[in-house]
Amino acid sequence: MESIMIYVPAILAVVGLLFMVIKRSWVLKQDPGDGKMKEISEYIYEGALAFLKAEYKLLTLFVIGASIALAAITFLPGATTHLSIVIAFVFGAVFSALAGNMGMKIATKTNVRTTQAARTSLPQALKVSFGGGTVMGLGVAGLAVLGLTAFFIFFFHFFMNGQWVEGLYNGETRTANELMTILLETLAGFSLGAESIALFARVGGGIYTKAADVGADLVGKVEAGIPEDDPRNPATIADNVGDNVGDVAGMGADLFGSYVATVLAAMVLGNYVIKDMGGSIADAFGGIGPILLPMAIAGVGIIISIIGTMLVKISNNDAKEAQVQGALNVGNWVSIGLTAVACYVLVTWMLPATMKMKFYGEGYMDISSMRVFYATLVGLFVGAVISSVTEYYTGLGKKPILAIVQKSSTGAGTNIIAGLATGMISTFPTVLLFASAIWASYAFAGFYGVALAASAMMATTAMQLAIDAFGPISDNAGGIAEMSELPKEVRQRTDILDSVGNTTAATGKGFAIASAALTSLALFAAYVTFTGIDGINIFKAPVLAMLFVGGMIPVVFSALAMNSVGKAAMDMVYEVRRQFREIPGIMEGTGKPEYAKCVDISTKAALREMMLPGILTIGFPIAIVLLGKLVYPENNQLIAEMLGGYMAGVTVSGVLWAVFQNNAGGAWDNAKKSFEAGVMINGEMTYKGSDAHKAAVTGDTVGDPFKDTSGPSMNILIKLTCLIGLVIAPILGGHDAKAVVQEVEAVEVVVEAPAPEVKQSTKEIRIESVKSADGKVKATVTTVTDSAESVEVFEGTEAEVNAKLEAFKKK
Amino acid sequence: MESIMIYVPAILAVVGLLFMVIKRSWVLKQDPGDGKMKEISEYIYEGALAFLKAEYKLLTLFVIGASIALAAITFLPGATTHLSIVIAFVFGAVFSALAGNMGMKIATKTNVRTTQAARTSLPQALKVSFGGGTVMGLGVAGLAVLGLTAFFIFFFHFFMNGQWVEGLYNGETRTANELMTILLETLAGFSLGAESIALFARVGGGIYTKAADVGADLVGKVEAGIPEDDPRNPATIADNVGDNVGDVAGMGADLFGSYVATVLAAMVLGNYVIKDMGGSIADAFGGIGPILLPMAIAGVGIIISIIGTMLVKISNNDAKEAQVQGALNVGNWVSIGLTAVACYVLVTWMLPATMKMKFYGEGYMDISSMRVFYATLVGLFVGAVISSVTEYYTGLGKKPILAIVQKSSTGAGTNIIAGLATGMISTFPTVLLFASAIWASYAFAGFYGVALAASAMMATTAMQLAIDAFGPISDNAGGIAEMSELPKEVRQRTDILDSVGNTTAATGKGFAIASAALTSLALFAAYVTFTGIDGINIFKAPVLAMLFVGGMIPVVFSALAMNSVGKAAMDMVYEVRRQFREIPGIMEGTGKPEYAKCVDISTKAALREMMLPGILTIGFPIAIVLLGKLVYPENNQLIAEMLGGYMAGVTVSGVLWAVFQNNAGGAWDNAKKSFEAGVMINGEMTYKGSDAHKAAVTGDTVGDPFKDTSGPSMNILIKLTCLIGLVIAPILGGHDAKAVVQEVEAVEVVVEAPAPEVKQSTKEIRIESVKSADGKVKATVTTVTDSAESVEVFEGTEAEVNAKLEAFKKK
Repeated sequence: MESIMIYVPAILAVVGLLFMVIKRSWVLKQDPGDGKMKEISEYIYEGALAFLKAEYKLLTLFVIGASIALAAITFLPGATTHLSIVIAFVFGAVFSALAGNMGMKIATKTNVRTTQAARTSLPQALKVSFGGGTVMGLGVAGLAVLGLTAFFIFFFHFFMNGQWVEGLYNGETRTANELMTILLETLAGFSLGAESIALFARVGGGIYTKAADVGADLVGKVEAGIPEDDPRNPATIADNVGDNVGDVAGMGADLFGSYVATVLAAMVLGNYVIKDMGGSIADAFGGIGPILLPMAIAGVGIIISIIGTMLVKISNNDAKEAQVQGALNVGNWVSIGLTAVACYVLVTWMLPATMKMKFYGEGYMDISSMRVFYATLVGLFVGAVISSVTEYYTGLGKKPILAIVQKSSTGAGTNIIAGLATGMISTFPTVLLFASAIWASYAFAGFYGVALAASAMMATTAMQLAIDAFGPISDNAGGIAEMSELPKEVRQRTDILDSVGNTTAATGKGFAIASAALTSLALFAAYVTFTGIDGINIFKAPVLAMLFVGGMIPVVFSALAMNSVGKAAMDMVYEVRRQFREIPGIMEGTGKPEYAKCVDISTKAALREMMLPGILTIGFPIAIVLLGKLVYPENNQLIAEMLGGYMAGVTVSGVLWAVFQNNAGGAWDNAKKSFEAGVMINGEMTYKGSDAHKAAVTGDTVGDPFKDTSGPSMNILIKLTCLIGLVIAPILGGHDAKAVVQEVEAVEVVVEAPAPEVKQSTKEIRIESVKSADGKVKATVTTVTDSAESVEVFEGTEAEVNAKLEAFKKK
Repeated sequence: MESIMIYVPAILAVVGLLFMVIKRSWVLKQDPGDGKMKEISEYIYEGALAFLKAEYKLLTLFVIGASIALAAITFLPGATTHLSIVIAFVFGAVFSALAGNMGMKIATKTNVRTTQAARTSLPQALKVSFGGGTVMGLGVAGLAVLGLTAFFIFFFHFFMNGQWVEGLYNGETRTANELMTILLETLAGFSLGAESIALFARVGGGIYTKAADVGADLVGKVEAGIPEDDPRNPATIADNVGDNVGDVAGMGADLFGSYVATVLAAMVLGNYVIKDMGGSIADAFGGIGPILLPMAIAGVGIIISIIGTMLVKISNNDAKEAQVQGALNVGNWVSIGLTAVACYVLVTWMLPATMKMKFYGEGYMDISSMRVFYATLVGLFVGAVISSVTEYYTGLGKKPILAIVQKSSTGAGTNIIAGLATGMISTFPTVLLFASAIWASYAFAGFYGVALAASAMMATTAMQLAIDAFGPISDNAGGIAEMSELPKEVRQRTDILDSVGNTTAATGKGFAIASAALTSLALFAAYVTFTGIDGINIFKAPVLAMLFVGGMIPVVFSALAMNSVGKAAMDMVYEVRRQFREIPGIMEGTGKPEYAKCVDISTKAALREMMLPGILTIGFPIAIVLLGKLVYPENNQLIAEMLGGYMAGVTVSGVLWAVFQNNAGGAWDNAKKSFEAGVMINGEMTYKGSDAHKAAVTGDTVGDPFKDTSGPSMNILIKLTCLIGLVIAPILGGHDAKAVVQEVEAVEVVVEAPAPEVKQSTKEIRIESVKSADGKVKATVTTVTDSAESVEVFEGTEAEVNAKLEAFKKK
């Protein structure tokens, strides 16, 4: 029987989108200011649209190519994936692009309105800028949940007639579990589409924003000696566009991808829980409670985020950074608290009170739904704590930053060593936090627990994105104030928002890494279940070799991204120099710089330079499978393990390099900023313009591509790698019923014999297990002691027999 | 029957040591020059001895503490390791220290003799400096092989009465295989002792040399404006001592440790080959040919290295770098070629023509001895190619260096980004090379093949070290020439040697990484056999969590080492400044600097700062086991897998960070050096003193701790981690016969059923397997087809039965 709950997440997503539309029209109704402001804002808007347009043109080609490849995969022998994965893929790409498009449009419309609002008061400026962020956050989260759940509903009817019963697929009878697996394999296309767009948005956006930034600074600030955001600088519009392209659209696409992938992975593992419980459960949700739960959490999370965003406000016009940060914190903490409550309600309501889950090497265990709830708490804890850890290593006035400041006095070399070391050391608490979270959530509820921990953490995505997007909006608002030569207090107000925005940008990156790490692990677990292998054994040399190769990829990817920024920035430098040289009166303000040319250069460079990292990311997993097929044509299990080893290598190394690069970059940035207010070095107050400050500026130059290009790209790299693995998995898979008929195999039933007394050392336990063609297993257990011999026989599916053997073992 | 071959490697080692003594007395007989030269050389010698003395004092405490801990381990319940592991450990530490001591003494005696020889001719200078290097190389290799083989001979008689037969241990009857395992577990103590000393020598030495170097440069060159190696600089002696402490003693201890560990791991895996073949083989080597083979290769390698060193000479006094490099290459390539021939002879002579080896997931396979030979070729190939790869990314005039030089024109920031990116990209070919080598040598001959690949590569250790040590000796010789104000042509001659030495230093680092990587993999494989687990499944979340933690350790270790250099260098800066301020006439050359004070500061700082990285390295594996025992008191298998996951994480990440840091550091160094001859930037010749050069100097400052401290330390970190795992392994082990008696368990016998025709889909294969208390296994295989039923019974040890089942499967 179908449950109404299958529709609820989609409905909640629509509610979120409706709220977003209302908020959006409120923001757009705000006063966009007068002449010059409007003009500049228009330039930024046009620049952003120009980038999007060029990007979409390229992406259309990519989507067509990838669709053909995906379609080809479904025709491979042994593949169970349905051709409709292509539709899911295209929609995933389109939805992700739509979300990015919408976010960037609202951000570029909100910036000037924030500037105008800042002319009246700070609370109003916060309201407008955070309003824009809210639109962005709800748009991304709403589209993510709506897209995924709508496709699930559609596929559930298409593949399973909306019921948990066995049925025909490709002319074979499949169990409900198998049909659901095929459904979810196909649904993975949506996630793959979203993440592919994210790759280009993050990497392309990262290259764009830094090329424009570095180019504008090198010629404008250093060579021509004009201040930041000066309208005479031809690259200044590109720079402001970059903030939106990189920080708004890039981050949005990143979290869109994480959100979808996390929920998907949790659904896959939910299906596995049902399988472990014997292939069907009786509940009020049509027997698919564990599969619906992650979607329900995501849906409720949207409503919670709406509540959270409503709490973000200040009333005092003289408020400082602390109050603004405090307002954001209230919203954030309330959302997290409400999510915990929602998880409790949903988990205890939707899951069976006790579930059976298989733990590799430990056998089957009874897991209560409360333990799943504890796993979600682990996820919420990680999401909250990771921000503090990031804040410690990158925050103004914190010990590591002060140490870097001190080291700046002996030159750029020591500043850079200190920054690198800070980033490297910051991996210590971060990795321990992640490792503990993996272990704890797994100990509570297996990999389903890990996936639900990620789901709970991601539930407040809309809120996180709102906080995140408000930063670049405020940054832009300040730029517009500067370029429009507005009164000083306007810039002061936007500066307060911008300063808070810098902190939230750093902590937001921490959240994005944490989400990427947990998402990848959940996908990794889903991968193993899709392929039907019973583990990834790194004691097999080919698997170990792939672990090495996987570990290397993030390092090389980062290097490529960094070099790309360098190349793109040089293009920009030459163009700005040319304009200064050739346009008469440009420095006097009488000649008009050709902003569009600079926007065009950044756009082209970003699109050109993201190709190689993209090929690396997508090509390597495919190459490994092809190589594996070449060397081991008959051993899909080993190839699946090799690909799994590669995925693990990319994930472990990718997380490390993400943390290292983001935090080193953030630390250098704030070490440089520390000089603005003045710092005490060797007993002397030191300010901007000092040699120590120059050293710190050099450090920041190194940190820019770290924190804005290569570091954040790691998130996409690890998620996309795991997703590609997941889509390939069915080809290597052993869950296919057809394969079972062809291979009659000895079943391994692992039972740890009860440790006998020392005197019983002659006790023998004999287990005989048989799997027949129809998948049924018969196990005969013979116990021989000194005095007697007894025989017990268990029959049923493999899962049932294992469960019975477990129970027998307990006796 | 005992074979004479057991004594041959030890005899060859003694031959090597005798040759070393002769060479040593020849070097010492060379003219040490006159007054000032002798005095300076004496200072360096004293400084080096002072460091060694202080270091040994600390190490004595460490060895005592570690011995107690090791002794305690042997008393743990379930541990099979014999108490004599403590003796092996102490001797390993003493031999390693002895080798380092000897190497450093000869290096500090050879430097001044090289200077003196350079007054007559370049060929003579090369002869002397390379003679010193040869003494160092043969001393290290000779002591390593002698120590390991002597202990093996002793233990073979002590544990097994010099025979491959079963025997009593701790009152239990053990098979010969088990006794050999216990023997090798105990022998691992020797390797652990050697590697522990290497940790302190490498890390301490690395900190020492860079603290002195950076301190001397910052105050001397930058603040006081006096040239490098100026005798008025109080830190200049410490700087020259540092070259010996870091590059000679550190590298020597590193390769000593690799050499011993590689041979040990290959022996462990050789024992496993015998086990896979049913527990005994009949050969002309007392049934232990596969175990003796790695020792034989090591022994013959010493003789080959002697031949190789004899070929290194030039005759032309006007020779340039290319000719000197060519002479070294001749020696190196001939050694590698001879080693290939020796491997062919030894492998085909000492191994059974065909061996059975178990491949996890693929079952037993017949491996011919020729395949083992191919595996050794893989090792030799890696050793040769890794140098070229390193040379490409760090060599003067190569593309990556030229790119960094170009980027220097836009400032230190772009120089540093380019250097970082170069180091990062260099992981691409390096990791692909390693991964292919692992895969290929494993495909040829399993993990025994991997270990023998490493053994073959390490066979020419003496030659590699000779090439390596000659660099810092020449560097020192140049320093002495400068400080003694000798004629210009002397310095020119030593500069040629020094320049070649810089190249060999970079390629030597490549060799050291490759050796560490392969050694660690061999140890990793040995670990799995010691613990008796059948793999490391990263799909178990606790194992995956430890993979993450392991991956993080090298990053944090590197950061600690880098910070240590910073702190120690600041101590040095303050001391040099103090002396310049307080000692009258120091700048005029009338006052005498207090060299000893600077030596003392470097010494103290190095010893103090190496504590934390040391604790991190040694403490974490122990902490993981303790944590595992706490959470899973009954599941040693899982704890062993967790520790294995940690080891894999450390190895993968450690290799990446070693390659990244060494190559980035080498690249920056040579980018800076490029300015000495002048470089073309944007069409203009640019020299020393230009802004671009200053930017390159900043890059080199960052690179110094990368390439001389944290980068090379990675080798020790990964090897020591795997060795500690190996020593802990027996506690977690399942190979213990006693444990078998206590746990009567169902044996998993994995058999892939032959794929039946589609029509035979009703065929059933039933396997019933029983393991009894005495370790014997009885397997009954019932085959039921549509028409008939047949039964076959196999009995014997687990390995035998598996082999028979494999054979059955083939039918």
